[in-house]
Amino acid sequence: MRIALGIEYDGTDFFGWQRLTHGASVQGAVEKALSFVAAHPVEISCAGRTDAGVHGRCQVVHFDTEVQREPRSWILGGCSNLPNSVAVRWAQPVADGFHARFSARSRRYRYRILNRPVRAALDARYVTWERQPLDAKRMHEAAQALLGEHDFSAFRAISCEAAHARREVLAISVRREDEQVVVDIEANAFLHHMVRNIVGSLLPIGRGEQPVAWMAELLAGRNRDVAGPTAPAFGLTFLGPRYEAHWGLPAEVSQSGVLAT
Amino acid sequence: MRIALGIEYDGTDFFGWQRLTHGASVQGAVEKALSFVAAHPVEISCAGRTDAGVHGRCQVVHFDTEVQREPRSWILGGCSNLPNSVAVRWAQPVADGFHARFSARSRRYRYRILNRPVRAALDARYVTWERQPLDAKRMHEAAQALLGEHDFSAFRAISCEAAHARREVLAISVRREDEQVVVDIEANAFLHHMVRNIVGSLLPIGRGEQPVAWMAELLAGRNRDVAGPTAPAFGLTFLGPRYEAHWGLPAEVSQSGVLAT
Repeated sequence: MRIALGIEYDGTDFFGWQRLTHGASVQGAVEKALSFVAAHPVEISCAGRTDAGVHGRCQVVHFDTEVQREPRSWILGGCSNLPNSVAVRWAQPVADGFHARFSARSRRYRYRILNRPVRAALDARYVTWERQPLDAKRMHEAAQALLGEHDFSAFRAISCEAAHARREVLAISVRREDEQVVVDIEANAFLHHMVRNIVGSLLPIGRGEQPVAWMAELLAGRNRDVAGPTAPAFGLTFLGPRYEAHWGLPAEVSQSGVLAT
Repeated sequence: MRIALGIEYDGTDFFGWQRLTHGASVQGAVEKALSFVAAHPVEISCAGRTDAGVHGRCQVVHFDTEVQREPRSWILGGCSNLPNSVAVRWAQPVADGFHARFSARSRRYRYRILNRPVRAALDARYVTWERQPLDAKRMHEAAQALLGEHDFSAFRAISCEAAHARREVLAISVRREDEQVVVDIEANAFLHHMVRNIVGSLLPIGRGEQPVAWMAELLAGRNRDVAGPTAPAFGLTFLGPRYEAHWGLPAEVSQSGVLAT
């Protein structure tokens, strides 16, 4: 039987999602907790790996098991065997053809920038600090150049192992929420560091150091070397993937209207 | 010269606001940082002391000094000598008659309840968990009974040292924000544990275990023993005090329209 789970985590104290032989990973913590509930070793696949310090609102994973457990047991047993910084939001059986990564039609990320003269104290784990005033409207306008399918080499980490750099950005917005500037981005998939590199290039535009058209120029140039620096990890949260409605997953990862194919 | 400062803090790792001989306090951390900047011992007075685990968005303090420093020096020097969980939001000279506590016309608090079947992972420092579904509209309706000047003995901690229990609630609201229920309350002043005790009595109403009218009954009864338990500290944030406009403080603590006398 294949089980899918929604996982929430605060990435601050982990060396990223992926299981490591040395060092705490979210994957390792979840596998350990589920193995305890299943009473056999569990290996999970996720919708999207996240780097050290990046958070997850609703990461989706799946695994196979032959033991019979109610969804409630996976949730409660999982939560009680996880550190406080990780929780199982939901669990349910899924069709064998479901794959957390390959069935995902898109992924959504949120990046939070605290934009004021002094650094964060409250929420310091969840925001990046920018002391220069940012013009969120300029950033939003610039970001619209990324909409659609493009070669995103300009925003791709050197360490990226993807076969090619073509990705489709389905939605991107930049808005101000009081002291914060919030960047939301949804794409079919992401290259390594793609969101953080996009944010790193939106920042000089927001500060007025680069024109609005710079984003389109960077995209067209496909040259990572001239784009902005990689924004810090801890401002980034993986909101979660989206799947087609027929999988029957919770609404937070299954809004078919947005993903009409 | 009298200086006023806005202080933000994450209360998780402190034994509350008030200076202690043993144990970390926010007051102690701020006084240590300001003493370093002033190059003489600084003692601060605050608008409202907070308990262990309670956060501050814009606590206001004042102190007296004879050294000449730009506001920028108090802010930057303060921040750089404070732990990451405390920041100086702003600093400015104020008239000698200003007192952070006695000049405050009101205080505002926010209480966040994560309302879903599983505990928090993200934001765990800032929310209290309630797994039973809450009806925020019922809670809001019930809370309106507290508006105005009343004897709040029903919501007063035994340890409260105030001379009397009469306080004036200027505004109170309960609303849902996705998975959270948020309680905002503004009063001229608060008794010890008053917000947490009010929230502790709103919860059974939200769960449907008590009628909407229960809040008014508790208030009229003035009996702490029959009201709900004290809600946990970490869901609570002191948003800040408000002062009359003539003191010339930043807008976040000086919205005179709300405080017309």
